Amino acid sequence: MDTTPKGNRLHIALLGRTNVGKSSFLNMMAGQDIAITSPVAGTTTDVVEKAMELLPLGPILFLDTAGLDDISELASLRLKKTEKIFDRADVAILVTEPDVWGTYEEEVLAEMDKRKVPVLVVINKIDLDQPSETFLRELKTKTSRVVPVSSFDVQKRDAFVDALKRQLLEVAPDDFVQPPSLVGDLLPPGGLAVLVVPIDLQAPKGRLILPQVQTIRDALDNDAAVLIVKERELPATLALLNRLPDVVICDSQAILKVSADVAPAIPLTTFSILFARQKGDLAAAAEGAAQIETLQSGDKVLIAEACSHHPLQDDIGRVKIPRWLKQYVGGDIRTDVSAGRDYPENLREYKLIIHCGGCMLTRREMLSRMQQAREAQVPVTNYGLAISFTQGVARRVLSPFPSALLAYDRKMKEHSSR
Amino acid sequence: MDTTPKGNRLHIALLGRTNVGKSSFLNMMAGQDIAITSPVAGTTTDVVEKAMELLPLGPILFLDTAGLDDISELASLRLKKTEKIFDRADVAILVTEPDVWGTYEEEVLAEMDKRKVPVLVVINKIDLDQPSETFLRELKTKTSRVVPVSSFDVQKRDAFVDALKRQLLEVAPDDFVQPPSLVGDLLPPGGLAVLVVPIDLQAPKGRLILPQVQTIRDALDNDAAVLIVKERELPATLALLNRLPDVVICDSQAILKVSADVAPAIPLTTFSILFARQKGDLAAAAEGAAQIETLQSGDKVLIAEACSHHPLQDDIGRVKIPRWLKQYVGGDIRTDVSAGRDYPENLREYKLIIHCGGCMLTRREMLSRMQQAREAQVPVTNYGLAISFTQGVARRVLSPFPSALLAYDRKMKEHSSR
Repeated sequence: MDTTPKGNRLHIALLGRTNVGKSSFLNMMAGQDIAITSPVAGTTTDVVEKAMELLPLGPILFLDTAGLDDISELASLRLKKTEKIFDRADVAILVTEPDVWGTYEEEVLAEMDKRKVPVLVVINKIDLDQPSETFLRELKTKTSRVVPVSSFDVQKRDAFVDALKRQLLEVAPDDFVQPPSLVGDLLPPGGLAVLVVPIDLQAPKGRLILPQVQTIRDALDNDAAVLIVKERELPATLALLNRLPDVVICDSQAILKVSADVAPAIPLTTFSILFARQKGDLAAAAEGAAQIETLQSGDKVLIAEACSHHPLQDDIGRVKIPRWLKQYVGGDIRTDVSAGRDYPENLREYKLIIHCGGCMLTRREMLSRMQQAREAQVPVTNYGLAISFTQGVARRVLSPFPSALLAYDRKMKEHSSR
Repeated sequence: MDTTPKGNRLHIALLGRTNVGKSSFLNMMAGQDIAITSPVAGTTTDVVEKAMELLPLGPILFLDTAGLDDISELASLRLKKTEKIFDRADVAILVTEPDVWGTYEEEVLAEMDKRKVPVLVVINKIDLDQPSETFLRELKTKTSRVVPVSSFDVQKRDAFVDALKRQLLEVAPDDFVQPPSLVGDLLPPGGLAVLVVPIDLQAPKGRLILPQVQTIRDALDNDAAVLIVKERELPATLALLNRLPDVVICDSQAILKVSADVAPAIPLTTFSILFARQKGDLAAAAEGAAQIETLQSGDKVLIAEACSHHPLQDDIGRVKIPRWLKQYVGGDIRTDVSAGRDYPENLREYKLIIHCGGCMLTRREMLSRMQQAREAQVPVTNYGLAISFTQGVARRVLSPFPSALLAYDRKMKEHSSR
């Protein structure tokens, strides 16, 4: 059951004059009939709040403002109740239909502009009528965010929703796209995290790499203590403790050795998974890792690097992961490497995308890349999860994250029942 | 007893033709008669190695090459034995006397230049004869490092030695001026350091300040583990351990609270002291802290900041330390703040210099600043030690460093016996 408090949800004002199909649009977004949809003008007569989980964006709350479009209603735009909805919105979706644009729409743009709230313009009902060139040209001068949809076209529904999700992701305010806790929520106050760092510390002399520092800081910020130790000293150091630590975190590449050194009762995960959760959608990445189970000789896998300059990771993405994949599948897996901002044109040819940690990406950018993969219907996972999967410890490293583990188990069950 | 291995000592070739006073120069440096000095030419007939501790520079080894100055000896410069001394030298001191310069000196400069070994030219016997303007002008075209001394002038001896020390510090090779271990030498392999960090972590969101990171890294590099905890969780976290940690390190400003939370059997020090040792001369800084004991109402103390932009430390140097000094002395202490590369002109008016941590200085620069203070005969300590002293825990925070503690105790005894 989703218990996200209202305040943490992205508030989306759903605006549009009567009968442009706001309620059916809402149904399309929700993937089910939740509003009373009817072709009779003005059926939706009051404000409807509808909470949903719009992955990879997260928890949102639609504020359906009920067709306020005639003169009297335009006046009422400034009425307290309506203003309140305008004021509550983080983002507005203005629904219209081909070649329909007037005072109402202009008013909405102006009100939202005044509040610096971004507006997506959705042109609904494109199955009935295509918008004219003139209309589109005119619209382009007013806003760059236009998404043509048809909320009644069941076949294209997913594509429409995906396109909208990407636009929403781009305009959502920073604090909504802000990362969740790195490790703090795995630790009770006074808790203890053990960080296992590689023997050949990969950082410049006298330093630690940023992910390690960030993890330490996050634990301290959550009133927990952190014990840092190299792989070699781990068993002796765990023996110094008179109780089990709350979580052990290690480098993906050491997971096999470390998982043998850490009692099964101790939650264990990797830095890579902490960051996959913070930066992207861990449940989706867990499902993506399960996709490895279905790979067959001859399949193509894309190794996606967000930037073209991280030589240290080279041998992970270019050598180790390809080798482990082949070993796991027991056949030939073709791995291509794509570096940089865009996926290759032939993205759909791949059975799986294994993404780098995206240390240079914001959460918004990483979620956007995951969403692009989803649009192309290619599962996506990341280096760390792929490594843990091929080493047979995926369930172990996901165990501190129940919802991701559930998604993973469900996907694995799907694959095995095929 | 000093057990510094030869290899770790700065090797200084002592060169000069017969009777310029190399041996008496060596005596002056050592502060005692260790060589057989004699005005008879050629008394010193073989290579003499003399090890000494030249603070703040550290352990050095003089290679006295025995007056090789006539034609036959010049030829022998290239003989294996002599070449070997040239090759062993990190620095050369070429002793001459006023207006004496010729083929021998030119040859030495050339040989050393070939080896990229810096040369200090010492003009000895200036009590007998002043070097001529022409000589000095000529010399200036050959080298910028000229130190006039008189090794027989007992009164000026200290000033000469100080001037030479500063020149040696400037030309000593980087690896000699390299810092000692930060914390690693306090930890046995498999050891455990506890780092206590402030509740209001002073670092930018998601980070730790560099001294904390450097300390963690140094401990890991020495095969030890590190437990990091905020002040508030320290007692509960120490209770998680089934043995005492090898050292506890905290922020100077929390030393009073932390020293109460940490059993006396556990070695305790501050980040500030670790860095004072790494960056400068801890024993000298400990003696400097003891100087606070002698301060009286009306005395002037200089707060020296290495750079003019560290606002975070402002209230430590400008507010807290002055207040604590006044409280400790029980009278009015005038504190002036000097920021930047140079001490003020009136340095000798101060009874004590309390230096910032010098995070922007190299060890060479910090040692040079301490040496400058020594030349002005003003004791120098640092923020961290001054704080610990005024809080009555100076001995406790120095206890992990026996030689600094000894220097401190000796100085305190001196003060109390006055």
